[in-house]
Amino acid sequence: MKKINVTVWDEVEGAIGPYPDGMYTVIADFLRNSGQFGEVRIALQPQPEHGLTEAIINDTDVLVYWAHCHHHSFDDAIVERIRHRVLNGMGLILLHSAHASKIFDRLLGTRPAMLRWREVDELERVWRIEAGHPICAGVPEHFDIPHSEMYAEHFQIPKPDDLLFISWYEGGEVFRSGITYTRGLGRIFFFSPGHETFPIYHMPEVQRIITNAVKWAAPVCEPEITTGNVPFEYPPRNAKI
Amino acid sequence: MKKINVTVWDEVEGAIGPYPDGMYTVIADFLRNSGQFGEVRIALQPQPEHGLTEAIINDTDVLVYWAHCHHHSFDDAIVERIRHRVLNGMGLILLHSAHASKIFDRLLGTRPAMLRWREVDELERVWRIEAGHPICAGVPEHFDIPHSEMYAEHFQIPKPDDLLFISWYEGGEVFRSGITYTRGLGRIFFFSPGHETFPIYHMPEVQRIITNAVKWAAPVCEPEITTGNVPFEYPPRNAKI
Amino acid sequence: MKKINVTVWDEVEGAIGPYPDGMYTVIADFLRNSGQFGEVRIALQPQPEHGLTEAIINDTDVLVYWAHCHHHSFDDAIVERIRHRVLNGMGLILLHSAHASKIFDRLLGTRPAMLRWREVDELERVWRIEAGHPICAGVPEHFDIPHSEMYAEHFQIPKPDDLLFISWYEGGEVFRSGITYTRGLGRIFFFSPGHETFPIYHMPEVQRIITNAVKWAAPVCEPEITTGNVPFEYPPRNAKI
Amino acid sequence: MKKINVTVWDEVEGAIGPYPDGMYTVIADFLRNSGQFGEVRIALQPQPEHGLTEAIINDTDVLVYWAHCHHHSFDDAIVERIRHRVLNGMGLILLHSAHASKIFDRLLGTRPAMLRWREVDELERVWRIEAGHPICAGVPEHFDIPHSEMYAEHFQIPKPDDLLFISWYEGGEVFRSGITYTRGLGRIFFFSPGHETFPIYHMPEVQRIITNAVKWAAPVCEPEITTGNVPFEYPPRNAKI
Repeated sequence: MKKINVTVWDEVEGAIGPYPDGMYTVIADFLRNSGQFGEVRIALQPQPEHGLTEAIINDTDVLVYWAHCHHHSFDDAIVERIRHRVLNGMGLILLHSAHASKIFDRLLGTRPAMLRWREVDELERVWRIEAGHPICAGVPEHFDIPHSEMYAEHFQIPKPDDLLFISWYEGGEVFRSGITYTRGLGRIFFFSPGHETFPIYHMPEVQRIITNAVKWAAPVCEPEITTGNVPFEYPPRNAKI
Repeated sequence: MKKINVTVWDEVEGAIGPYPDGMYTVIADFLRNSGQFGEVRIALQPQPEHGLTEAIINDTDVLVYWAHCHHHSFDDAIVERIRHRVLNGMGLILLHSAHASKIFDRLLGTRPAMLRWREVDELERVWRIEAGHPICAGVPEHFDIPHSEMYAEHFQIPKPDDLLFISWYEGGEVFRSGITYTRGLGRIFFFSPGHETFPIYHMPEVQRIITNAVKWAAPVCEPEITTGNVPFEYPPRNAKI
Repeated sequence: MKKINVTVWDEVEGAIGPYPDGMYTVIADFLRNSGQFGEVRIALQPQPEHGLTEAIINDTDVLVYWAHCHHHSFDDAIVERIRHRVLNGMGLILLHSAHASKIFDRLLGTRPAMLRWREVDELERVWRIEAGHPICAGVPEHFDIPHSEMYAEHFQIPKPDDLLFISWYEGGEVFRSGITYTRGLGRIFFFSPGHETFPIYHMPEVQRIITNAVKWAAPVCEPEITTGNVPFEYPPRNAKI
Repeated sequence: MKKINVTVWDEVEGAIGPYPDGMYTVIADFLRNSGQFGEVRIALQPQPEHGLTEAIINDTDVLVYWAHCHHHSFDDAIVERIRHRVLNGMGLILLHSAHASKIFDRLLGTRPAMLRWREVDELERVWRIEAGHPICAGVPEHFDIPHSEMYAEHFQIPKPDDLLFISWYEGGEVFRSGITYTRGLGRIFFFSPGHETFPIYHMPEVQRIITNAVKWAAPVCEPEITTGNVPFEYPPRNAKI
């Protein structure tokens, strides 16, 4: 079986909050250490073509994407390049404020940037909704993130294929915090926990969810698909009448 | 346009908690007072055939069903009668602990009786998830039920057609509290708020939701449906080739 | 109840195939004659702003959109204007080769232009799949379009909310020919029958489907939706413990 | 990783049509020969407890179920036993006229026995709809079954989780011939091709689909799930306000 190549993408390079080597290093490390994937590369927005050259993206089976503040300076041509790859089978894991990324908006058709938010370091309790889904394997019924940025409904998204997690917040809100979509051949998972000032990507539950999601989102086949003008031919007449 | 006939069903007769004439009287009254429906009848479990004779059920467009403690003494033959009518178009509004009714179990295939619950009169905050859905018309973004019985995930249900409300609880839980299904020609809405010891059916938001749901669940057409053995005939060959 | 204002949009003005006054005239006429709508306007691509000025689109409850050959000359700014209105509640009925329009691509995220097609005037048999859906009211179990352009799978679309019609073609293909989506507050219906060289919009079944769809897609409410930064406040503590 | 144990179930023992050793032998053989599964057992309706004792069913990860004429003599207690196992994670592959089985009816809530059918040995062309789904891996865009029993819409089923195949028939009908559901922790796949008088289970495309489905339906985890009465405890107050 072909190994799954993963690219971990971040909008900034270097230390941020409790991540002295960047969040992307922590994420890439736990994916590598799982021993379940092939190449695990890092790509960053400040790099040429945002680190997502044709060569890199064509060799990526699953793209793990974290962004918060630099959505507007993301090149539209690279958005289309990612979209093209997703439609052709690349998995896409969107983390935290990637809800407001151009690529999520482009793939969903709605404005997923639209939600309620708040930063008071409040408690988020994440509830597992579909216990039998591969992304939920080994995840407890609920777990607490002691300090989190709050994201809440109404979240302007199409009906997800699967609603895997719902978050409860100390201030009285709820949020569809783990959802899946299929677009073309590509599988998409959005997971909201993961603010840059909290050590959320160090939590084993969160690492488990992201690792599961990368496996789940990997392309399963490279099907032939015919589109465009096709010739007419009468099917055979086999009925015994 | 044909008037919508509604039957409000309850498992017990008479005073209960803050409802001196029964919950069913309050529910039937606000439906009648809306001026949007035809006959609004009451039917009760202690009546012959649980008040749901063939004549009554065949003249019911939408059945509003409240039950809590007497599921097991509900006659299986009447369960099948309700199911038959739902598959043929009758709307079904299941309230509160009707989650554990035989008819909900029968129509969903899972065991929707399975969930977490608790009675400490805690705060439930109901969040509206699909603002554009007819059942949500005129319902605020969220509203508080000061004292409620808690129902929480994991709730053993199939993926709903629509997830309209999610509830937040003081004790840290969440629940998919307003969901829809289609079964055959029939539309189903389950709405969890409504314990018998709290005056929840007096709340205008709850009355609005139930009224909207009755309108939404009413059958829209009586289609012809052919099943069984059908003859073979070659379709015409019209192609210009 | 507010009247539903409809705008019937077409990419060309004047006679086309069996429509001496344009397809849009036939469509607008049967909608008007149904007596179920308010203003039924016509808007055309060659007009300034493609006939879809801010004033017109803001006064449109449902936009009925037919296009085939001029997708690429459609102004991207007007695409965004339509999308904005759909997300805020305007219904959108996409007819025939509007599958390849910029607005459908933008709202779905996939490339719905991608499908098989063929023009040999072949028989299309349309099968009704969800008999209980409002768009199917009064529509027979199946009906024949004697001469049609063939559109077939694979059709690159996200999972629809509802699959209402599947078409069978003489040459051996099938197609998901009637599908719905919700995007934001807006409801979308795509219906593929309706080539410009065949009198398909004169068929009573097709007129019934489009009329039903316009009613179904009309906005049901104008909800308040809060997004952005919100303050923190502890919910009350009501539990009796 | 735990091996997947499969039980292939049939309603009759011995030769039938082009299957001198029964269909179940052919199905069990290609599953065994794939080398992808653990134990591949056979169980038959005439055996005690229909071959589905508690011991057997508890050791079955995926049940492949073929039935046609003996649904009514299937023991209701065994239906509940299968259902219980599905809700707890066992995969269920329903073949051909298992559409009319008690277990499918029980798990869906509708009457999936209701459809059109016809036996004139006509051509069925199966179209793949979701190319990226694991069950479709390696399956061509469409393939022909030269002689088949016809099953057609309207098929009384709830909205499937995934619509994977649509069949086209020589006589002018269409059918949702490959569909998935989730019920509790269990995954269900129904695939209609496979009449007992045609050698359909000898076709490589059909073998590939069933093999893929067994892998897909195998349980991914054994989660802990808490239901029933739970105690109240205030979550910690962590917000910095």
